[in-house]
Amino acid sequence: MADYTFKEKVVVDPSDARAFEKALYVAAGMRKEDAAIVADHLVKADERGVYSHGIQRNSIYLNRFKKGGTDPRGVSRVVKEFGGTALIDGGNAMGMVTGKFAMEKAIELARKCGTSAVSVTSSNHFGTCAYYVQMAADAGMIGMMWTINCGNIMAPTGGVERQLGNNPFAFGIPTRKHPTIIFDAATSVVARGKIVVAMKTHSPIPEGWALDKDGNPTTDAEKGYWGTVLPFGGYKGYCQTFVNAMLAAVLNNSAFGPTIIDLYEEPEKIQNNGFLLQCIDVNAIDDIEGFRTRVDEAIDYIKGGKKASGVEEIYVPGEIEANNEAKARKEGITYPIEIVEESHRFAEELGVELRLTK
Amino acid sequence: MADYTFKEKVVVDPSDARAFEKALYVAAGMRKEDAAIVADHLVKADERGVYSHGIQRNSIYLNRFKKGGTDPRGVSRVVKEFGGTALIDGGNAMGMVTGKFAMEKAIELARKCGTSAVSVTSSNHFGTCAYYVQMAADAGMIGMMWTINCGNIMAPTGGVERQLGNNPFAFGIPTRKHPTIIFDAATSVVARGKIVVAMKTHSPIPEGWALDKDGNPTTDAEKGYWGTVLPFGGYKGYCQTFVNAMLAAVLNNSAFGPTIIDLYEEPEKIQNNGFLLQCIDVNAIDDIEGFRTRVDEAIDYIKGGKKASGVEEIYVPGEIEANNEAKARKEGITYPIEIVEESHRFAEELGVELRLTK
Repeated sequence: MADYTFKEKVVVDPSDARAFEKALYVAAGMRKEDAAIVADHLVKADERGVYSHGIQRNSIYLNRFKKGGTDPRGVSRVVKEFGGTALIDGGNAMGMVTGKFAMEKAIELARKCGTSAVSVTSSNHFGTCAYYVQMAADAGMIGMMWTINCGNIMAPTGGVERQLGNNPFAFGIPTRKHPTIIFDAATSVVARGKIVVAMKTHSPIPEGWALDKDGNPTTDAEKGYWGTVLPFGGYKGYCQTFVNAMLAAVLNNSAFGPTIIDLYEEPEKIQNNGFLLQCIDVNAIDDIEGFRTRVDEAIDYIKGGKKASGVEEIYVPGEIEANNEAKARKEGITYPIEIVEESHRFAEELGVELRLTK
Repeated sequence: MADYTFKEKVVVDPSDARAFEKALYVAAGMRKEDAAIVADHLVKADERGVYSHGIQRNSIYLNRFKKGGTDPRGVSRVVKEFGGTALIDGGNAMGMVTGKFAMEKAIELARKCGTSAVSVTSSNHFGTCAYYVQMAADAGMIGMMWTINCGNIMAPTGGVERQLGNNPFAFGIPTRKHPTIIFDAATSVVARGKIVVAMKTHSPIPEGWALDKDGNPTTDAEKGYWGTVLPFGGYKGYCQTFVNAMLAAVLNNSAFGPTIIDLYEEPEKIQNNGFLLQCIDVNAIDDIEGFRTRVDEAIDYIKGGKKASGVEEIYVPGEIEANNEAKARKEGITYPIEIVEESHRFAEELGVELRLTK
């Protein structure tokens, strides 16, 4: 939550947040069932503490409706299907609606063929990858996702130009007693948003976050802002982001490189965003119950390792977010007041009477 | 080639190297056709400049035959098949033989179902991932591979014990005019071998390579040797290595964590090594010729970007290795004399008359 101050907090009931968000997106022109998908997606991200992908995105999504970039009533459809594969045209609908449709298809195909690969084109920003790989894991499957970012912010190793996104990718692994293993990561060291905040607050940035526009390492946030974000793990992160782009976008001729439409700066333009979903039905290879037990044992083994001095707990992928989610469902979601007030302004504009409440 | 000195070089004809290696493994008990697979795998790694996975591994592989850890005449077989998935029992054969068998199955299944997932158990160290994802790309498919390392050398983030391997993973993407895109990476910042060399030469190691046994950052190679190697990209690399282990080993009950057999230190023990191969037949989703063109265009776009000062060329994943391979095929493979002499000692022991020559 580095992007917000918590000077004044508002605790909101998650069901109220879902009802509010659904009403907001219905008022903005979406069908009720589609608006409910968007609402669940955004509020779940906030429950998990991933505020960057929560209701604070109302501003950009609603603006894209207003400016014509995204079609609130777009319909996704399967245009090609073969064995365990499908190609889906997102119909320029909200990405969360297309993403859920596509993962449901991927799960159906993997049930039939043991494994699946569903390639999506003509989509929009779809929220978090975690949401979709969780769906796969809930179905007793291993889920994978490969995406391309809606904005070029990274240079290839040795380059200085913004040629690539920090294309996120994700994995979901079913468990029994432990929360689902979810590894959902962008390929940059940090989100560009953190550099924006440092610039706004006149703070330096740590070495290793960004390069200036000439490709030199910088700790000056403004120079980093006008330069490029660094990939995680050096050249390996650059290779990963390039591969993710091939899988997500180049495979089905979605936007890549020069044809990428910036999510924030070009709200009137169609994004043609692509992504790839894969499922493996554990039962096709092993027995899901045995697998769940072994993954739980693997988690216990890792968490039971000797800790470094000062470390209270060793976490496994997705555990911190799952803990946040459990807490938010019991105690409510803690929002910075700025986010709540911004959402209320949209509600007023759109004539929505609901408000975010405890 | 950080692990070897090049004080005295020997240039070897790649066909001679293949013939020599095949004879060596036949003399060690392998069937001719299987020995040819191992020979091609190891020599190709050397051609690509990946000497760590080339014929310098003769010592460990032949030792495992001698001590009984690996069965030179092991036979791999499909034990379960459903749709695009298969479970393969490697039969404790040489990993390169099992790996090739498994990737051929994965390609066959993806041709039938558009995509495939082939899970392998009871295998041994299989060389480089690059070899297999290249096979997929040669078949007009996207190849992926997830593996577990034969040795625990990494701590989870926050831990200090060697609980995880630097489990490599790889992707292969078909191209037309450019070499196949191959991203084949371990999840540690550097191979542990580099720390061993630094220790032997009493050199310091850069910060960020390793932690001491108490989990503190260290530049002392010996302390790093007795400690743990660091994951690439911090906690993201740890998450990736954990996920890779779930996909490669825990999925089919191969060795993981406490049951890992160290490749080097336990040559008499059966490894029960696991891995996972995936293919996507590009034709199932798009048209392979269109895809090849777009990947080539993507490569041209990246390579055409503005370079940082002092950078002569921007490379794409696998390009440097492909350049090495083209050069070695024309001019021969340049080996350090130590590697050649070691291989010749094995030849003498096994009564092989061939020698590595130019």
